Amino acid sequence: MSILITGVAGFIGSNLARAFLCKGKKVIGLDNLCRGTLSNIGDLLALPDFRFQRVNISNLNEYRNALNSILGGCTVTEVWHMAANSNIPAGVNDAGVDLRDTFMTTFNTLEIMKELKISTIAFASSSAIYGDLGGAKLVEDIGPLFPASNYGAMKLASEAAISAAVESFIDKAYFFRFPNVIGVPATHGVMLDFIRKLKVTPDNLVVLGDGTQQKCYLHVEELIDAMLFIREKSSDRRNYFNIGADDEGVTVKYIAEQIVKTVSPEASISYGIGNKGWVGDVPKFSYSIRKLHNLGWKPKLSSAQAVAHAVKQIALQEIDSTVC
Amino acid sequence: MSILITGVAGFIGSNLARAFLCKGKKVIGLDNLCRGTLSNIGDLLALPDFRFQRVNISNLNEYRNALNSILGGCTVTEVWHMAANSNIPAGVNDAGVDLRDTFMTTFNTLEIMKELKISTIAFASSSAIYGDLGGAKLVEDIGPLFPASNYGAMKLASEAAISAAVESFIDKAYFFRFPNVIGVPATHGVMLDFIRKLKVTPDNLVVLGDGTQQKCYLHVEELIDAMLFIREKSSDRRNYFNIGADDEGVTVKYIAEQIVKTVSPEASISYGIGNKGWVGDVPKFSYSIRKLHNLGWKPKLSSAQAVAHAVKQIALQEIDSTVC
Repeated sequence: MSILITGVAGFIGSNLARAFLCKGKKVIGLDNLCRGTLSNIGDLLALPDFRFQRVNISNLNEYRNALNSILGGCTVTEVWHMAANSNIPAGVNDAGVDLRDTFMTTFNTLEIMKELKISTIAFASSSAIYGDLGGAKLVEDIGPLFPASNYGAMKLASEAAISAAVESFIDKAYFFRFPNVIGVPATHGVMLDFIRKLKVTPDNLVVLGDGTQQKCYLHVEELIDAMLFIREKSSDRRNYFNIGADDEGVTVKYIAEQIVKTVSPEASISYGIGNKGWVGDVPKFSYSIRKLHNLGWKPKLSSAQAVAHAVKQIALQEIDSTVC
Repeated sequence: MSILITGVAGFIGSNLARAFLCKGKKVIGLDNLCRGTLSNIGDLLALPDFRFQRVNISNLNEYRNALNSILGGCTVTEVWHMAANSNIPAGVNDAGVDLRDTFMTTFNTLEIMKELKISTIAFASSSAIYGDLGGAKLVEDIGPLFPASNYGAMKLASEAAISAAVESFIDKAYFFRFPNVIGVPATHGVMLDFIRKLKVTPDNLVVLGDGTQQKCYLHVEELIDAMLFIREKSSDRRNYFNIGADDEGVTVKYIAEQIVKTVSPEASISYGIGNKGWVGDVPKFSYSIRKLHNLGWKPKLSSAQAVAHAVKQIALQEIDSTVC
C-alpha cells in the first residue's frame, strides 16, 4: 500500500514525501529531474519505504513502464500529483511547455489511475486558475475563470480533466489551490531570483516592476500541513480549497528589502516600471481561505513572517550550494 | 482578407460558412471529414469565395502545411474555431478523443494564430463547461467550473488556453457557450438517434433514461445569428456569452413524442431508468441568457418550437439520405 507522488524531487513534492515518510507511509516517487533535483531527496533515497524512479510522465508509455518496473507488487492507493512546469514566464513564451509538463502530466496520471484502478487523486492546483479578477475576493466558487498565463490555463485544464474523471472512474479528488509558496529546497521564484542576483551584483538589486505588486505567501511547511489536513477532514467527491496566508500579502518591495537586509545589507534596490513582472503575472489579489478556516485549519505564519523565515532558509541553502 | 473556419464541414461550421459567404465574405474552411462530410458543404465548394482543405488540425505540422498550401496570398483576419469532437459519450470512454479533437485543435489553432499574427478568435464553447451545478441558474460568471464530461473539460481547457493567449498575443476572443443546438445538417444528437432508431424498429422507440431529463434547445439558424450579433456588438478583449433558448427547455419525453408523431405515428415509446442518459450527461439545468439579452439579442423560437422545426428538417434529411 503506497502513495504515489509525481514531481517528488521538486520543491513541494520533496517536502510532501518527507512528511508522508515521517508518518510511516510508503512512498513511490517519480520525477523527470528537469527542475527537481536528486539533492532535494538525497536524504530519502536510502529509506526502505521510499522508491524513486526518474521518468518523463508527459509520455504515457514511459510513465506506464516506469511504474511497472518500480511497483513490484505494491498497490498504489492514491496519487499526489505535484509534477508541473514551475517556470511561468517560460510557459508564456512557449505554450508547449505547460501543455507538456503541467497538463499532459495530469492527463497521463488520470490514464494510469484508470488502468491501475487508483481511486483518489490529490492535485497541486494554483491561484493562477483565477486569472485577474480585478481585486475581487478570490473565493473558491468565483467566476469567470480566465487565466492570464499558460501555467494557469493548464492548471485549470487539469482541474477540468480530473473533474470529468470523478464523474467516471475516480472516487475522490482534492484540488489544492495555492498562491506563491516559499521555503526550501527553493527551485524557482522571486526570492531565489533576488538572492542569486545579489550574488552576481552584491551592491545593487534590480527588481522587475515598481515593487508595488502584492501577493500572499505561504510557507511550504504550512502548505504540507494544510494539504494533509484537508485530505483527512474533507471527503466530498470533489474537494477544492484555497490554501494561503490569512492576510492581504506583502509587496515585492518588502521581499526585496528583507533579502537585501539578510544577504547584502549595503546593496541598493532599483525598481522598474509597472506592477506586472511579466505577461500573465497577476497583480495584487485578495485570496479567501474562509473555506479552509471553516474546515478547521489556519496558517500560523503571516505572509510577512513566512517571507522572513524563508529568506533565511534560502540564503543558507544558497551558501551551502556555493560551498558544494 | 479571409475568415478561417475550422470544422467547416460539420453541423455548425457549414451553417456558419454559408452565413459568411451570404454576407460577401471570403471563407477558408478546414475539416478532417471524420464527423463532418463533404455533402454538408457540397453547395459551397463551387463558390469562388470559398476554399476548402481536408486536414487533421490536431497535428500542428499538417495544420501549418494545409494553410500554407491554401492561403495563396490571402490574409486571415480572424479564426472561427468550430472543430471539436461532437460525440460526448465517445469522449467519456476514451479521454484521448476530446484531448485530440476538442483541445489539441484549439491549442494548435492558437499556435497558428501566433505564427500568422491573426488577432481575433471566435470559439464554439459549450454549456458543458459548467458541469452539474445542481440546478443553479447558469450565468456566465458562475463557479466552480467542474465539468462532468471530457468534452466539457476540454472545452473549458480550450477557453483557458485562449484566455492566456489574450494576455499575450491575441487582441480579442469570443467564447460562445451554447447547450444543445439542433437543425440540419444533423450529424449527431438525440434527435438524429431517435429518428434512426425508428428507421430500424418503426413500431417502438427505446429511450435511454426515464425521459424526464430536461434541456433547452437552440436552432442552429438562431445560433449563427446570435454569434454574428455578438461578434459585431461586443468588443471586450474576452467576450463570453451564453447562447440559448429563453426558457427552461423541454424534456427528452417531449422530443421523443414529437419525433414519433412526425416519423412513425404508430410507434410506442419505452423509457429506461434514471435521468442521466450517459456518464457525464448533466440532467436538467437552467441557462441564463440575460447577458445576451442585455446586448440586444433574443431568440425567436422557444425550445419546443426549435425542436418541432428541427424534427421536420431532420426527418426530411434522413428521407433524402435514404433515397441517395
